Order: sequence, then structure tokens, then C-alpha cells
Amino acid sequence: MKTAAVIVIGNEILSGKVTESNAGYLSKELRDLGVDLRRIEIVPDEVDKIAHAVSIASDEFDYVFTSGGVGPTHDDVTLRGIAEALEVGIERNGEFEETMRKFYGGSINEYILRMADLPAGSSLLWEDDLPIPVICARNVYVFPGEPGLLKKKFQAIRSRFRSEPYYLHKIFTTLDEGDIAKILEEAAEAHPAVQIGSYPVYSRKVDYRVQVTIESRDENEAREVTDFLKGRIPAETILRVE
Amino acid sequence: MKTAAVIVIGNEILSGKVTESNAGYLSKELRDLGVDLRRIEIVPDEVDKIAHAVSIASDEFDYVFTSGGVGPTHDDVTLRGIAEALEVGIERNGEFEETMRKFYGGSINEYILRMADLPAGSSLLWEDDLPIPVICARNVYVFPGEPGLLKKKFQAIRSRFRSEPYYLHKIFTTLDEGDIAKILEEAAEAHPAVQIGSYPVYSRKVDYRVQVTIESRDENEAREVTDFLKGRIPAETILRVE
Repeated sequence: MKTAAVIVIGNEILSGKVTESNAGYLSKELRDLGVDLRRIEIVPDEVDKIAHAVSIASDEFDYVFTSGGVGPTHDDVTLRGIAEALEVGIERNGEFEETMRKFYGGSINEYILRMADLPAGSSLLWEDDLPIPVICARNVYVFPGEPGLLKKKFQAIRSRFRSEPYYLHKIFTTLDEGDIAKILEEAAEAHPAVQIGSYPVYSRKVDYRVQVTIESRDENEAREVTDFLKGRIPAETILRVE
Repeated sequence: MKTAAVIVIGNEILSGKVTESNAGYLSKELRDLGVDLRRIEIVPDEVDKIAHAVSIASDEFDYVFTSGGVGPTHDDVTLRGIAEALEVGIERNGEFEETMRKFYGGSINEYILRMADLPAGSSLLWEDDLPIPVICARNVYVFPGEPGLLKKKFQAIRSRFRSEPYYLHKIFTTLDEGDIAKILEEAAEAHPAVQIGSYPVYSRKVDYRVQVTIESRDENEAREVTDFLKGRIPAETILRVE
């Protein structure tokens, strides 16, 4: 089983100027791939804060995905933070510099070239003929914050991360959480390896009160718990099972 | 100046089943209030993971806001995590129990009553005649994950957090980041207390290429930096200044 963290770098998110969507996108993609996303963290554009978050996550999880802070401006300090986290220097990467020169042509300048100053030992992932490759420093995969670019780059390399799949079932009920808490607890105690979630919704836009989710890497056990819950939650309160 | 962290508790977010919106909401509210949000973290429904995140944030920042994990079901372990973080026990809060009994009436049961098991020393914030108060344990403010409820409860107590305001200006330009990197760096170096952000957008839906933001608690300095940038970025590339 592979685990991951997503670290988003950006004052614009913390100050509410930009609505974050990359972590949400990656959470869905990673789930589809069977990778267990264990932490999302959003930190400011500050080298020490980035370094601290990346250092801990890089040790703790199989993969770390960063979003943001990789352009040519003064507030783009993600690569320096990652270098500090991995305790390596920053050095100009010749292959990446060449890419920047080709991509930017006549409008190249020293600020744009600084984007080729990478953590020492970084590798460049070129799948799908990406015009600009994904930078990978040890187990840290570096993505831009611009959502369109991040998606394009992640799609290009996503097959690298395929792991064992999850099996998910959902039960939608008109009961309240308090009414089913006992039943869910029994199931959770009998099947500690199955993730049982309970999500109340207080909205007239939906027809249910609580969505129960049953999720496991073991297809049979997920089915078994779902059948148990279907048997214990009064049938007339179950709207549907997915 | 007051600082804050938002900690979201929820496997449903990490697994991509639910799109997170509370952290985004709080980031905007806190900015409006002048509170400096320094970290957003999303952790699983696990007591030790919650305790670790809350413990660090509670020491490091003035306020910690948690979202999620406070219902009656087995996966609602936020209050236990907070108690562990603050190194206090969990005890049944008589006033909160009374509230639960009134609110739930005949459908009360032992699972619902467990919601009144709070970190020892918690206080209950009742502003605006909230039917269920906000739980505050030391500097940790506990909110439900359901967005409608979180908003209602935060609105009720938001005036507690008012701090000195920020002054924000925006410049929208048709230049690329590489073209303005030097000018921005000069301004950032001359005014380290001013936050200067640069946000490229690669979308035909907007008329600009980069949004530059200038933000400070000092109204005059924010204005001074904005005027400097307006003078240095070629006028014909500036679409508007807000």
C-alpha cells in the first residue's frame, strides 16, 4: 500500500484570495489510483515553512506532491524549500535550462532561468512529450499551482503511481446519525480494516440525511460490511445503495 | 497581530469523496478580520493524527479552528484528539448535555450524549442564541464539518477575532511573470513588510496574464508599493488597478 501527502504552497490560498482546487483534484486522482492520501497541508511562500512540511512528509509517506511556488518571481521559493528539506544544495540543471531556453525563446531572461535551479539530484519526467517536464526530487513531485498545468502534468505521469484499488459502497438513509451510530460502531469494531464513514447533510437539495460509506481494499469484506449494514438499518429508511 | 491555523478532520476529504470548502471559507473570513492564517492542514479521523496537528498549532498560533469529526458516530474523534493535544482528560459537560437533551428531545440516546464528552476545561460560546454553542478548548475553536452549520456558528462568534485590517491592491497586466519578475523583486526587497504576490492565469476566460497583489497592514506603504509598480510596469500592459 502506498501513502502520500499533498503540500500546497501559497499565500494566495491562506489569505483567501484564490480558492484552492489542486488538493481536491489530487485527492480524487490518488484515490482512483489506490494511493492512500494521508495529509494535505497548505503553507505560506516561505522557505523554512515549506522545508519543514516537505521534510516531515517526505520521511513519512511514499510520495509527496507539491503545488505552487515554482515560477520566476520572488515569491516562488518551493524548490529552495524542497532542497532544504532534503538537505541538498540547489544547482542549475542543464537539461532544464535548455528546455526553458527553447520554451521561452527570445523572451528568456535571468529570472526565468532561475526556474532551472533545482534541488541537486532532481530527475526530470518527460512522459507524454510534456513541453516542460515534471521535476522529481527524491520522492517529491513538483507541480505548478495553475490548475490547468497541474492537471496536464499529473495526467502525464499518473500511471507511475498505480497501486491496489479501493472498493467503495454507499448507503443513503433518511435516518439521522444518532439513529445509526450504534450499528456503525458495531460494524467498525468487527472490521477495523474497513473504513466506515458517516456524512450528514443538512440541505433540502438532497433526499437523504446521512450518507454512509464503506471502503476497503478487500472487495469481499467491503461487500460483507455493506450487507451487514443493509440488514441492520431499517429498510424503509434506505433510499439507495451504490 | 493575531495568527491562526485551520485543521480539517476528515477521511472523506483525503479520499476525494467530499470537496472541502470550510477552509476556503474561513481563510476569507479571517483575512477580512485581519487575522493572519498561517496553515491549513487536513488530517484523517484518527485521534493521534488530530492530536499531533492540534498540539503543534495550538502552541504556534493564537487561534486554532477545527472543522469536522464532532458528531455521534464512531469516526467522530476530534474532541478526543484535542483533549490529547492539550493534555487534559475528557469529561461529560453538564451544560452541553442539557443542550443535547433539549435539542434532540425524545430521540436522544447514549451515542448522541457522547457529544457532550468534552476536553476538560472547555468553555461554551453561546453568542447569537445559538441552539448548540461553539466549544472552545483553550485556544481551539471546534466547528462541525457540515458547511452550513460551520458558517452559522462562525458568524455567531466572528467578532471575537477582529484584528488590525489588511490593505490590498491588485494590478492586472498582460505581461508574463518573467517580464515583471525583476520589478517585483526590487519592490519586495525594498518593502519586506509588504506581501507582493504574482499569480499567472492561463485561461482565455480572463483578459490578463498575471494578477499582482500588494498587501500590507500599513495603508501608506501598500499605496507606495502599488504606485511604484504602476510606474515601472509599462502602462499599456496594465489593464486595471483595483
